[in-house]
This record gives sequence, C-alpha cells and structure tokens, in this order.
Amino acid sequence: MRTAERKGQGRVPAHPEIGDVSLQQVLEALVDPVRRSIVRELYTSNEDRACGTFGLTVSKSTATHHFNVLREAGLIRQRYVGTSRMNTLRRSEIEEVLPGLLEAVAGRGDD
Amino acid sequence: MRTAERKGQGRVPAHPEIGDVSLQQVLEALVDPVRRSIVRELYTSNEDRACGTFGLTVSKSTATHHFNVLREAGLIRQRYVGTSRMNTLRRSEIEEVLPGLLEAVAGRGDD
Repeated sequence: MRTAERKGQGRVPAHPEIGDVSLQQVLEALVDPVRRSIVRELYTSNEDRACGTFGLTVSKSTATHHFNVLREAGLIRQRYVGTSRMNTLRRSEIEEVLPGLLEAVAGRGDD
Repeated sequence: MRTAERKGQGRVPAHPEIGDVSLQQVLEALVDPVRRSIVRELYTSNEDRACGTFGLTVSKSTATHHFNVLREAGLIRQRYVGTSRMNTLRRSEIEEVLPGLLEAVAGRGDD
C-alpha cells in the first residue's frame, strides 16, 4: 500500500474545475435515471458515500461508468479510500454556477 | 376555414396535464440545446411566439419535431392561429411541479 493510501488520503481521479462545468454536460448526466438516483441519494443524505452503498441494480462496471459520468460533469467528487471510491456531491459549487438545479432535480421524489 | 379558426381560437394539439409531467421527460426535452434555446427564449422574452420567430438553424421539420417534444413534455402550450403555431411556456405550471428548474436551465446564458 502506498503512503497516500495508508494516510487515508487516497488517489484522486481527474475532476473538472467548477468554472468549466457545462450545463449541457450536467443535463446529459442528470437525464439518466440511475445517475439521478445517485445524485438524489447524495443530496438527501448529505454525506459522502462509497460506490457500493447505493443499492444500484446495474452491474459494477455500469455503475462505475455512471459515477465517472457524474464526476466528469462536475457533479460529484471522488476519492479512493483504500479500495473504495468515496463520492461527494459538489453541492455548493454546483449551486454557485447553476443555482436551483440540484434542488429542482434531486430535492424531491422522482416520477 | 373552419369556424374555430375564423374566430382566432385555432386548433389545439394534445397537451399533457401538468400532474402527468415527468421529470424524466422534461430533462429529455431540455438536454437538447436547440430545445433549450427555445425554452430560454420563451423564458426571457416572457411572451408567446410563433414557431418561425426563433431563428433556429435547423430545418422546418426538425424544428417542428423539437416543438412537439417540448409540448409533449409539458413545457410549452401550442395553439394554431391561422396557419401559425403560437408557443407559450407553461411557466407557472412547471414552477409548481418542478420549482426552480426553468430558472436554473433557462434563466441564464448557456455554456
């Protein structure tokens, strides 16, 4: 195990700067119901969550894809803690550039 | 010309009840940049507009498709006035069922 992991800091995959987040990419991420369920769960629980804790009904590789899309759109931050990926909603950052969007999309039950 | 048209009431294509509007369908409508530009224009100008006045750079049949998608998602109302289709944003209705969404998606410049 590398030092960073021993310290619990983990590896960090690439994330866009919040200023580079595009509405187009955010909407493409949120139009998928599985990805929206992830965002909703992070939004309502308001805590960091490991990928395995969302109870998704898709394969692990599909789930990984969905988390990657959310991260690349700027909606979540991911960091490794040991072998787990922890996910954090970039709530205040998104609220700054797209005010009201998360509340509208994730702040209530879905269809 | 039929009586309704002579009276200027026009024909009315089918619209969903606002209670039947689904977040999934609304996001699928808004994920397209052309459709988003239509919604933004209706949102910011705050007036009814004929289909031909949006300056869209797509063919007429493609434009008609985009307007149909927006209508079927519950985002706009359409009515015929003579041979023109007039479009109205269902602003207060959408605000009621998806508060904050239109402001977040259409209330500012795009990417």
